[in-house]
Amino acid sequence: MQSVLHIRTTGPGLYEFTDDVIRFVHESRVQEGLLTLFVQHTSCSLCVQENADPDVRRDLEEFFRRLVPSSDSPSMRWIAHTVEGPDDMPAHIKAVLTATSLSIPVVHGKLGLGTWQGIYLWEHRRRGGERELIVHVGA
Amino acid sequence: MQSVLHIRTTGPGLYEFTDDVIRFVHESRVQEGLLTLFVQHTSCSLCVQENADPDVRRDLEEFFRRLVPSSDSPSMRWIAHTVEGPDDMPAHIKAVLTATSLSIPVVHGKLGLGTWQGIYLWEHRRRGGERELIVHVGA
Amino acid sequence: MQSVLHIRTTGPGLYEFTDDVIRFVHESRVQEGLLTLFVQHTSCSLCVQENADPDVRRDLEEFFRRLVPSSDSPSMRWIAHTVEGPDDMPAHIKAVLTATSLSIPVVHGKLGLGTWQGIYLWEHRRRGGERELIVHVGA
Repeated sequence: MQSVLHIRTTGPGLYEFTDDVIRFVHESRVQEGLLTLFVQHTSCSLCVQENADPDVRRDLEEFFRRLVPSSDSPSMRWIAHTVEGPDDMPAHIKAVLTATSLSIPVVHGKLGLGTWQGIYLWEHRRRGGERELIVHVGA
Repeated sequence: MQSVLHIRTTGPGLYEFTDDVIRFVHESRVQEGLLTLFVQHTSCSLCVQENADPDVRRDLEEFFRRLVPSSDSPSMRWIAHTVEGPDDMPAHIKAVLTATSLSIPVVHGKLGLGTWQGIYLWEHRRRGGERELIVHVGA
Repeated sequence: MQSVLHIRTTGPGLYEFTDDVIRFVHESRVQEGLLTLFVQHTSCSLCVQENADPDVRRDLEEFFRRLVPSSDSPSMRWIAHTVEGPDDMPAHIKAVLTATSLSIPVVHGKLGLGTWQGIYLWEHRRRGGERELIVHVGA
């Protein structure tokens, strides 16, 4: 079973959509299987991270902002791909440093997440946008 | 077929558990399929790396220690999530830079690893702990 | 259904092989399923990235070259694993920062890539080589 999830983002940061995935798994009626997420973009990405303290998401975003500054920063003047704006090439770099696809086992009809794990779309563009993900559940 | 693997860690570093996965695949009797690992924590992660020279693991650990210093280091004073200790937020960062899930094809009843590849749990917390992984093998 | 893909590389950089994967999916006749790629090496890796402007690949490569300089660089003298050359340990580090496996849903008989997404083998060794990947498509 497959579906497409749409997630609207308004700027850089982590957007939780765990509930959408839980709903999809529930509707699939799969008892034992494998859930896979795939993001159809190259300037946002996926991660599973702590969903308790919101500071964790802020710190993740800040670490990435410091590791990969925008291409108009003095340290990033070597970047050639600037035509789509100073946040575009850093967004591609942040995407390859994280994940484009992610798989989570379905156990006894439920997503096998740990107690503190949430599923996030990580937006790396300043303007954000309407993001599409394919969700697939199989044997 | 699914199972849970428990891995006890005693501090930062890479812990090989290739043999546990090989045993699981053998017991599953799957001849052609896909093995997926999923770690149920946000401060440790997964990787496939060289299992020949132990210096490779030490160097990987040292690179990450330098890239993401503990939050009481002068360069990391901007970190907000410090309540669980100076190694906690860096552990989350290291986890998103590596992998939470990993898939390896099963070919002719065997795990399709390359000659020098081993499967590792990468512990990012100083104290370590009892870590849980879900293993799933399907079509 | 499974197969092995061989990709010849001649030095560091991203090598697109999207067409090989599309051909495999087509031959499999799978209509709805999951395609998984697994690279059997620890000094090259996988990514899905933009296949429009070639500058994106050059900038990705340059970012990684700056983030993980060769082990004969002044800042990397702490590296212990140098026996296979100054580009070997950095190659392992770059591999863990990206992906060893990657899954893409097959939707209506076609690979579910976004408009600008291509599939790349990322070679991290200077000499390159003959690289092997397992492709698996399942339910």
